[in-house]
Amino acid sequence: MKNTFGNNVTLTIYGESHGGGIGAVIDGLAPGLDVDIDFINKLLAFRRPMGAISTARQEADEFEIQSGVFQGKTTGTPISIFIKNTDTRSKDYSATRWLARPSHADYTANCKYHGYEDYRGGGHFSGRITAAIVAAGAIVIPALNKKNIKIGTHIKAINGVCDRGFSDNISSELDVLADKHFAVLDSAVEEKMTAAVLNAKQSGDSVGGILETAVTGIDPGIGEPMFDTVEGMLAHALFAIPGIKGVEFGAGFGISTMTGKEANDRFEAVDGKVRTKTNNSGGVNGGITNGMPIVFRCAVRPTPTIGAEQDTIDMSKKQNATLIAKGRHDPCIVHRARIVVDCITALTVADMLATRYGTDWLAKQ
Amino acid sequence: MKNTFGNNVTLTIYGESHGGGIGAVIDGLAPGLDVDIDFINKLLAFRRPMGAISTARQEADEFEIQSGVFQGKTTGTPISIFIKNTDTRSKDYSATRWLARPSHADYTANCKYHGYEDYRGGGHFSGRITAAIVAAGAIVIPALNKKNIKIGTHIKAINGVCDRGFSDNISSELDVLADKHFAVLDSAVEEKMTAAVLNAKQSGDSVGGILETAVTGIDPGIGEPMFDTVEGMLAHALFAIPGIKGVEFGAGFGISTMTGKEANDRFEAVDGKVRTKTNNSGGVNGGITNGMPIVFRCAVRPTPTIGAEQDTIDMSKKQNATLIAKGRHDPCIVHRARIVVDCITALTVADMLATRYGTDWLAKQ
Amino acid sequence: MKNTFGNNVTLTIYGESHGGGIGAVIDGLAPGLDVDIDFINKLLAFRRPMGAISTARQEADEFEIQSGVFQGKTTGTPISIFIKNTDTRSKDYSATRWLARPSHADYTANCKYHGYEDYRGGGHFSGRITAAIVAAGAIVIPALNKKNIKIGTHIKAINGVCDRGFSDNISSELDVLADKHFAVLDSAVEEKMTAAVLNAKQSGDSVGGILETAVTGIDPGIGEPMFDTVEGMLAHALFAIPGIKGVEFGAGFGISTMTGKEANDRFEAVDGKVRTKTNNSGGVNGGITNGMPIVFRCAVRPTPTIGAEQDTIDMSKKQNATLIAKGRHDPCIVHRARIVVDCITALTVADMLATRYGTDWLAKQ
Amino acid sequence: MKNTFGNNVTLTIYGESHGGGIGAVIDGLAPGLDVDIDFINKLLAFRRPMGAISTARQEADEFEIQSGVFQGKTTGTPISIFIKNTDTRSKDYSATRWLARPSHADYTANCKYHGYEDYRGGGHFSGRITAAIVAAGAIVIPALNKKNIKIGTHIKAINGVCDRGFSDNISSELDVLADKHFAVLDSAVEEKMTAAVLNAKQSGDSVGGILETAVTGIDPGIGEPMFDTVEGMLAHALFAIPGIKGVEFGAGFGISTMTGKEANDRFEAVDGKVRTKTNNSGGVNGGITNGMPIVFRCAVRPTPTIGAEQDTIDMSKKQNATLIAKGRHDPCIVHRARIVVDCITALTVADMLATRYGTDWLAKQ
Repeated sequence: MKNTFGNNVTLTIYGESHGGGIGAVIDGLAPGLDVDIDFINKLLAFRRPMGAISTARQEADEFEIQSGVFQGKTTGTPISIFIKNTDTRSKDYSATRWLARPSHADYTANCKYHGYEDYRGGGHFSGRITAAIVAAGAIVIPALNKKNIKIGTHIKAINGVCDRGFSDNISSELDVLADKHFAVLDSAVEEKMTAAVLNAKQSGDSVGGILETAVTGIDPGIGEPMFDTVEGMLAHALFAIPGIKGVEFGAGFGISTMTGKEANDRFEAVDGKVRTKTNNSGGVNGGITNGMPIVFRCAVRPTPTIGAEQDTIDMSKKQNATLIAKGRHDPCIVHRARIVVDCITALTVADMLATRYGTDWLAKQ
Repeated sequence: MKNTFGNNVTLTIYGESHGGGIGAVIDGLAPGLDVDIDFINKLLAFRRPMGAISTARQEADEFEIQSGVFQGKTTGTPISIFIKNTDTRSKDYSATRWLARPSHADYTANCKYHGYEDYRGGGHFSGRITAAIVAAGAIVIPALNKKNIKIGTHIKAINGVCDRGFSDNISSELDVLADKHFAVLDSAVEEKMTAAVLNAKQSGDSVGGILETAVTGIDPGIGEPMFDTVEGMLAHALFAIPGIKGVEFGAGFGISTMTGKEANDRFEAVDGKVRTKTNNSGGVNGGITNGMPIVFRCAVRPTPTIGAEQDTIDMSKKQNATLIAKGRHDPCIVHRARIVVDCITALTVADMLATRYGTDWLAKQ
Repeated sequence: MKNTFGNNVTLTIYGESHGGGIGAVIDGLAPGLDVDIDFINKLLAFRRPMGAISTARQEADEFEIQSGVFQGKTTGTPISIFIKNTDTRSKDYSATRWLARPSHADYTANCKYHGYEDYRGGGHFSGRITAAIVAAGAIVIPALNKKNIKIGTHIKAINGVCDRGFSDNISSELDVLADKHFAVLDSAVEEKMTAAVLNAKQSGDSVGGILETAVTGIDPGIGEPMFDTVEGMLAHALFAIPGIKGVEFGAGFGISTMTGKEANDRFEAVDGKVRTKTNNSGGVNGGITNGMPIVFRCAVRPTPTIGAEQDTIDMSKKQNATLIAKGRHDPCIVHRARIVVDCITALTVADMLATRYGTDWLAKQ
Repeated sequence: MKNTFGNNVTLTIYGESHGGGIGAVIDGLAPGLDVDIDFINKLLAFRRPMGAISTARQEADEFEIQSGVFQGKTTGTPISIFIKNTDTRSKDYSATRWLARPSHADYTANCKYHGYEDYRGGGHFSGRITAAIVAAGAIVIPALNKKNIKIGTHIKAINGVCDRGFSDNISSELDVLADKHFAVLDSAVEEKMTAAVLNAKQSGDSVGGILETAVTGIDPGIGEPMFDTVEGMLAHALFAIPGIKGVEFGAGFGISTMTGKEANDRFEAVDGKVRTKTNNSGGVNGGITNGMPIVFRCAVRPTPTIGAEQDTIDMSKKQNATLIAKGRHDPCIVHRARIVVDCITALTVADMLATRYGTDWLAKQ
């Protein structure tokens, strides 16, 4: 297991879906940052189930900051946040304990942990653990904002229903997204996306989608190639989010059909400041930020747990079997995963900035 | 700079395009592995320029193993490989020293290194450095092969000209790819791809593409979530290769339009062995291998250095300027990058296996 | 801050002396290890204040395992242990908030955290945090014992009152130490040591000492030089314990006056097994275990907080001042630190074994 | 193997005593630092054998900087330095290949590398590899000096013949040491120390000693507890030097017999600057620098290879045997190890400063 990530600002996560709770330890954060409890609650609410398009499990996500915050500010020592599990129905899982849910982590966890894993609700592999990432990220985001760095993600697509992309005015679009529960740029698509989710749910099915993220206001010169590039660090962190199957930057896979003339982002100097006319590079060249917005997309798979009956195996007997999943589950996690992407991005960006500028920088005024 | 990657098997790389040379240090590799000089040369040849579709720069890639190999076998102590640069024409770069090549790392390196960077031919950011990755990977691949683990990459597309995908019989396809200079599954597409490259070259342009990789024979249960997942570790490493802008596993971004019923890989037990009927997960669930082939794709951008004139800036004056690139360059790097992907994958897989099974495992018989 | 240690088995610690509590996250431990609650309590009791020779602060050290243990066994996913603070008297510290206790971390924490540090009782720098290390180590020690690896520490000296050293029969001495609250090999010295502590206490003073540790049953061939040597890893971990000012292995500093003939540990083969006739190397050659007991000593400083008046500075004004420390404190921490040394050693040894033999080894039978 | 050390400035070392050569890769160093070839040669000369008191092996230590330096300055990308082996007499070792030199790494390397290790002259475990550390450190020291940070080590003792300790005026003593080949503060002891070494040599024996190091000019507030403390990081690095068996800071083991009143370093404000009246803490409290000189001592064992006949085992047969070592060897390494201590200290200090202040700080004026 490697549940700690980061070089200078690190995140450690722990917990299981139906155990005592989940939590995060953030280490290396600058001292003197304001910790805004309301903001943490706001972001946790963005991750919570949203009515009919989400699971029926209702977790209040009441959290406790156990260390690292004193008189409302970060101390510079590790911040521990714990979130209790309350709405667990663990017995839903005992009957199907040995039936591996297709494309879930049941089988692979069993191969790795030899049956000792907490199988209830996916255990450590449940999306539940991402609440800890959100709580941790919610401590970092306000500090980045004070440095004029903004992070925001919109639902680019759910089951093929697409939102429009970011415009040239990303910064103000991020302001709008910051208050949106269902994060789309074009409000008109929300209804269609919701309908697609409900439609899948009714047929015991699930849907996936694409999340598109932008980070604005970041200096050029951030990133530590050859290996700790902006892309490498972000992708490493993003693939920790359950259900992510692809990460692309700028024009991404689309760049493979462009020519150099089309893809190259021409520089221009405007009032002594350097920018590029296009942003096919997604704000990163040679693994280092170029001052343009960092833009990337994540492919989110349809939830593997579905209502419909599925062929599978009994792991204890290595025999074929049929699974009808019990337990409550989401027909779509795209809209909920969006804030998780924001938060893990914030933590990774904070880490890269601490590497570049030192341990105090984030709190400097 | 972070030029070391890996937890238990680590790769450290150094060097510049027009400096004394480039090199790699591999640490943590099991003692007793055969080191096959011919095989290293074979893989280096796969990376070398291929006639008209590549740069005119001709590097012999003569390498020297400076440590860690004794009597033809790895000792278990760090292996240092050095490759001299010989065919450098550094003065090609002095006239354009301050003109940032669009979408290359010139500007970002200048932001990070404040003008001290070796600018000649991209310096440390040149694709040249990937020769060291290939030499290092070529030491690991035969050892993985002995463990029945195969790694192979084919050119899925160049500028929209597509190869067919892997069949159900990936293992034997990897055997074929292992001897191919221009790695396509369907030999008929080679000519079309080559034509696309030459066409771009003639108009002072460049093209990109997609590489698709498979790893077969790997046990289920490998990978260290939440963070050091198979996807996270591989993506982190792959994004170190210059020009990669996206990494996706299994169905990748395509999974975003599938439903759970379509995307889920049903398990089946065949002769007491577990497999899945489809492989949309790309061999990984919950960040851990499931025993199916690991399959992923990388988006490769068109080479940023092109023959045509481009708008850019003079970095020293922060003023607009026009660039006509000198220096020799590739109109396409997709076919050359393929072996780099294989090699960095091999090193990452070896690292994950050492983490799982310990330092000696790779050499055990 | 770097509050995570280890390569493959990692320990993350957090908390402050007078905050909500303290805790530890252990990651990378093999699945299937028995977790013995009584044993954790036993070791925590070894660390708790012992009557007149310790602080008056009484913490029950009631802990909660929040994750990573299921049905009494480790799951293989991160184990989180939280210990609430209950007996805090924070106001003892407000009057002296800006008066730096000499040789304590008040001033250096203030330099690093700019006044945002939780100053009460030393905050994150309090010995209190070592309770989390003990709880974590108490999960690992039984598993090591099952592998025939024993770890034990005795009080070699307090204020110059010396215990005898380990004999040739270390293994059975470790069995005796395992049940001793005041860990000396020669019971006769306990009274003299206690008297020295009480004597110091009465004069508003404090005393230090030396702890000597042995690890038996460990295979030859463990350790990852050049840097992650047995000595380097253990010393790195041990210096995290507040008050440790020196670490030496085998003959330690005494080896500096020996000649090679005297210091060299001659090998001998006894019944086909290799051992050395002496153990001046402390079980380690070239950073790697040689199969003999690992033996090392830690110098423990006298507690910096003392009752007597001391010259110091007011940190807010950078002016000279006089301090009469309030707050409860220990006149000696040597006897309490002993189990902390055992536990951090256990975690480091488990890490080195996981590196060598893989993630499952510790649970294998 | 873990041959890379450091968080933000890292050192990777490789090589064997009788292989092609040895080398180092320094990564993360700020761009724009002057690289002084003469200074590297000067420090390498300090490490080279010194007449009759050293080995007869004569290595010119001609080095090649293969990357990371451009136009006389660091580029910010990895610096690779390679030093060829020239004066090797490998056949000296074939006759005794399976006879483990007592207290050397022959046996432990054999346990770890299963016979594949390069046994000639200790292979990777030879003191020879420390030349790479010196070359690397010699790039960093001038940059630290420009920041008013000085590092120096003197021979505190050889075989019980003692130099005096540092005075209150450490900074000027470091200036003197910087030009001394045989680094003692009291020149009168050199002859006695030399005599002790020669005496041991004549009787086929060897001697050890103690090195004492000081680092001045370092800001308060450096160090990353709980784990990456100044003591922990330095000790971790120092134990990589062959022959080091103990590391102590400030009063070190001597503090164990002091009381709190004696040991505590009273603060005083002098002209608005904070200092302590004594320095028993060795410049570090709570793992963080307090602005006083960092002072530590290393115990150096007598060279394990001696001329006299020794009992040992034949590793291939696990039988008792007698060894008369061939090969050239040092009767004492203390005087040569001194510059290695300086250099690894410099690299570790540079790493801690980069962590604290960011990647550019060391080059800032």
